[in-house]
Amino acid sequence: MRIAIIGLGRMGANMARRLAGRDIKVIGYNRSPEVAHELAREEENITAADSVAKAIGHLSPPRVVWLMLPAGAPTEDHLRQVAERLEPGDLIVDGANSNFHDTRRRGEWLEERSIGFVDAGTSGGIWGLENGYCLMVGGEKRYVELIEPALKALAPAPDRGWAHVGPVGAGHYTKMIHNGIEYGMMQALAEGLALLRSRDEFGIDLAQVSEVWRHGSVVQSWLLDLTADALARDQSLEAIQPVVSDSGEGRWTAIEAVEQGVPAPVMTLALQMRFASQDQEGYPARLLSVMRNAFGGHVITKR
Amino acid sequence: MRIAIIGLGRMGANMARRLAGRDIKVIGYNRSPEVAHELAREEENITAADSVAKAIGHLSPPRVVWLMLPAGAPTEDHLRQVAERLEPGDLIVDGANSNFHDTRRRGEWLEERSIGFVDAGTSGGIWGLENGYCLMVGGEKRYVELIEPALKALAPAPDRGWAHVGPVGAGHYTKMIHNGIEYGMMQALAEGLALLRSRDEFGIDLAQVSEVWRHGSVVQSWLLDLTADALARDQSLEAIQPVVSDSGEGRWTAIEAVEQGVPAPVMTLALQMRFASQDQEGYPARLLSVMRNAFGGHVITKR
Amino acid sequence: MRIAIIGLGRMGANMARRLAGRDIKVIGYNRSPEVAHELAREEENITAADSVAKAIGHLSPPRVVWLMLPAGAPTEDHLRQVAERLEPGDLIVDGANSNFHDTRRRGEWLEERSIGFVDAGTSGGIWGLENGYCLMVGGEKRYVELIEPALKALAPAPDRGWAHVGPVGAGHYTKMIHNGIEYGMMQALAEGLALLRSRDEFGIDLAQVSEVWRHGSVVQSWLLDLTADALARDQSLEAIQPVVSDSGEGRWTAIEAVEQGVPAPVMTLALQMRFASQDQEGYPARLLSVMRNAFGGHVITKR
Amino acid sequence: MRIAIIGLGRMGANMARRLAGRDIKVIGYNRSPEVAHELAREEENITAADSVAKAIGHLSPPRVVWLMLPAGAPTEDHLRQVAERLEPGDLIVDGANSNFHDTRRRGEWLEERSIGFVDAGTSGGIWGLENGYCLMVGGEKRYVELIEPALKALAPAPDRGWAHVGPVGAGHYTKMIHNGIEYGMMQALAEGLALLRSRDEFGIDLAQVSEVWRHGSVVQSWLLDLTADALARDQSLEAIQPVVSDSGEGRWTAIEAVEQGVPAPVMTLALQMRFASQDQEGYPARLLSVMRNAFGGHVITKR
Repeated sequence: MRIAIIGLGRMGANMARRLAGRDIKVIGYNRSPEVAHELAREEENITAADSVAKAIGHLSPPRVVWLMLPAGAPTEDHLRQVAERLEPGDLIVDGANSNFHDTRRRGEWLEERSIGFVDAGTSGGIWGLENGYCLMVGGEKRYVELIEPALKALAPAPDRGWAHVGPVGAGHYTKMIHNGIEYGMMQALAEGLALLRSRDEFGIDLAQVSEVWRHGSVVQSWLLDLTADALARDQSLEAIQPVVSDSGEGRWTAIEAVEQGVPAPVMTLALQMRFASQDQEGYPARLLSVMRNAFGGHVITKR
Repeated sequence: MRIAIIGLGRMGANMARRLAGRDIKVIGYNRSPEVAHELAREEENITAADSVAKAIGHLSPPRVVWLMLPAGAPTEDHLRQVAERLEPGDLIVDGANSNFHDTRRRGEWLEERSIGFVDAGTSGGIWGLENGYCLMVGGEKRYVELIEPALKALAPAPDRGWAHVGPVGAGHYTKMIHNGIEYGMMQALAEGLALLRSRDEFGIDLAQVSEVWRHGSVVQSWLLDLTADALARDQSLEAIQPVVSDSGEGRWTAIEAVEQGVPAPVMTLALQMRFASQDQEGYPARLLSVMRNAFGGHVITKR
Repeated sequence: MRIAIIGLGRMGANMARRLAGRDIKVIGYNRSPEVAHELAREEENITAADSVAKAIGHLSPPRVVWLMLPAGAPTEDHLRQVAERLEPGDLIVDGANSNFHDTRRRGEWLEERSIGFVDAGTSGGIWGLENGYCLMVGGEKRYVELIEPALKALAPAPDRGWAHVGPVGAGHYTKMIHNGIEYGMMQALAEGLALLRSRDEFGIDLAQVSEVWRHGSVVQSWLLDLTADALARDQSLEAIQPVVSDSGEGRWTAIEAVEQGVPAPVMTLALQMRFASQDQEGYPARLLSVMRNAFGGHVITKR
Repeated sequence: MRIAIIGLGRMGANMARRLAGRDIKVIGYNRSPEVAHELAREEENITAADSVAKAIGHLSPPRVVWLMLPAGAPTEDHLRQVAERLEPGDLIVDGANSNFHDTRRRGEWLEERSIGFVDAGTSGGIWGLENGYCLMVGGEKRYVELIEPALKALAPAPDRGWAHVGPVGAGHYTKMIHNGIEYGMMQALAEGLALLRSRDEFGIDLAQVSEVWRHGSVVQSWLLDLTADALARDQSLEAIQPVVSDSGEGRWTAIEAVEQGVPAPVMTLALQMRFASQDQEGYPARLLSVMRNAFGGHVITKR
């Protein structure tokens, strides 16, 4: 199988490597061409292309172009560029963390042009190269079958870790909610560990506890494995800023829950705690202090 | 009616003034005796006492001693001191924000000594002197009747703002939950106002909006009145620290909800947001950043 | 002043009555014309119109047409119908609970046609007729001035309860967040009262407590007034379904908080608790039971 | 090594089996003696005892008695019975889900009698027999060393899944918080899966998705493994009641967070959602419906 990958950032490059290492020919294009050339030098099965057009030129029908770009404008722009150069029956795969509403709209737009579209929600982060990626795939059956060799190569094993979960949009939708769950699990773990260290009289060693929980406990999880590993190196976390970023997927999950009228309190609250960590001003807290002072004469700490 | 008030802090002194201004004779005792003497100079109906014993000495059976002390040890200690000097049929009133479990225990202890006990949960803060206090009273009917003149004087009006809500403990219990509701309402208001100012393109004036909401809207409330007043003076809140204190009552409400198995998510979350504002270290946020880095290679902001 | 009101539902009819009672001439149009005719019989200052066109025909430049329709399609459709019949310099007011994004889009569309647009977020519900409405108004100054007599008549007092809070959209935005706060306050009150009745040994009378809190307490609020009134009639609530509806505004507030990255945990959670009350199936709870059984062998209650 | 186990319920019996299977002699006592006798017939290394006294009689100093009883009164009662029959230098281990405050009190009480005490928080549920248990152990070093052979036998591997985490109480404390995290993770997973099935147009198969997430995704976890397994059998969950029980540990974690002033919003909310599932009456929802009706005239669904 032969496949063009547009976008060779951390995710795209590693996916190209994994595909190439499993006998899939990859044509790689990246905005900064040296990245593609370096990859091509590194892996026999990767060929560098200096433009989207040239990348597509390396393919023969049915062509498969896999986008691994940031969601939003970069994905939108390249999808249109690619579509202009494809023919009916060819296929675009979007492996980004795109919003599923965008994905559905793009799927309809491509369908009008008889170009196939598959959304491949991809989890696994920097560990995917070695461990394989979890792939949640949406689209028409015939198009998903077209990329089955690639899916089997990217997944942890040919028969595990990838699935055709529904029509166009269902892949990104499933990935989106995966991330919402991830937010909730992470927050639960962080809260628990923070509480665990609050009792000085126990002097609990978080590195030890997170390690012991990895074996036989109910909270065994990959997030715990990573956390135990990080805490083993340093549990003071003094060098880390107490600010947590969030990404589109966490926000979209919260919005989707509201739009569907489905309660998702823990996933949503986990997101809001990240917002709170990002808020350096603390206006609500100031306001509450002022209110307390106003009714109770409680002392306000002035700066 | 004649009543001894033990503890002339902000609340106790104002309550003494309100009682005295409504023809109730008050014997005031305070750890720092000058406070009592100053009050006595200010109000004809207030007499200063230099010790608990002397304060009680001014009373005749059935004696009524009203404690207005910080909850916990100060209330416990003085209650025991007072009880030693009272006789069967006399009455102790606890107007503090005591935990209702303590109140019930104290009620049983006093009952063994045939001394009456009434818990008077008191709301109204610094505005109570002028507007009257809201009094939630627990205890036996005969004891509550004994202090009815005082309750009528302290309340906003003789027939409004005070009630005998149940047996010993029920007064403090009602006041505790009142405060839990207060936490939730305050948090809702603070969140809304903070969100309202987040859209620069609208340039909304919080002083104006909080003022307009005071008339005809569904969120009309005393908390809004106080907030509008504070925002009219300064809505930057730049001089205020973004740290909100909490008191026993908010915590006890959250614990009571857990012990009763009753969902109280909003009241509890309002409390937890205060905890978050008090947490200068941000360990959970640091941990989350480390986890994100561990699985996704996301950049961590180092200090 | 003369004004056409399109939509004479509960809100529109009462606003027409209040305007008419304060010497503003109202032309009323309603899909079911008998409603308009009945109002016209009832109030001297109200004239019924049998079509939008006829309603507008009663006005002279600068014409003012006030929409009081359900948000979404009904408002959109009528706004377009009305706009076609207006001339440059005329004004449309939207008094519905419209989404502020729609409002901004409509404002731009009308601006291209040189027709003024004002969004008047309106609170007060069924009590507005008697007590006056709280009006949060967005738009250009000259258009807001045009309807000042109407705003003064609708508000609780000419100088209170209405404000020009910002450009087009700001009025609906402010009203939206007002409702978000309302959700949080209501939930806090409901949780507190439910907890208050959970201790059988206290036998607390919620009608009594909610009434007493109305006088001198920190939780004094209009919502409490209404609640006390309802509980005085029946505190068993046995005839009421335990299902709470939600409206667009609560949802939009939650979405806006996510889009702005502003923590609004209590307002959002209040909404989610309504979703939970609407969920008759309880799939998450079933799933949790199954998980507990799977790791702990905990008994599952089968139907 | 020789050890007496008091309490052969699901957990105790399996632990006895695992110990016996790894060459540790177990004296088993159970209130219903037939359980002990059956175990003894099943496993060569298990001896049945018909009373606590007889069980202890089988041991020689330093004696080790391991309690595997329900937390609260059963543990308290048996601990006292056992203590009366032990001598200085002997050791009691509490493997129950006891509250750490009780554990500390018991530790002090036993220390006065020179009897050792170790709290062994135990996770692993019904899978522990096969996979090994995760053991979080508190107590003095010399006593923990005394039971090291048992800990190594019970854990998934001799050097993994058990740890001496601190002084008496620290073991139960760590287990308590482990369960708090578990509540949060479970709730996140349940919310996500419920949301995933809410979009009919995607027709997502939860069995398929939960299975695919097990390989390469960020939410890989033992809870997910169990969930995928259950959903593979039946994802309708029609036979399951939408009611989730909670246990002491989840509640104590929430209370501890409040008492420590540490924000634990997600762990706490997960607990409260269980409470909500247990609430068949829905009083808060009824109250909210009544309030909506009172201010907005919104229709109430009557039964």
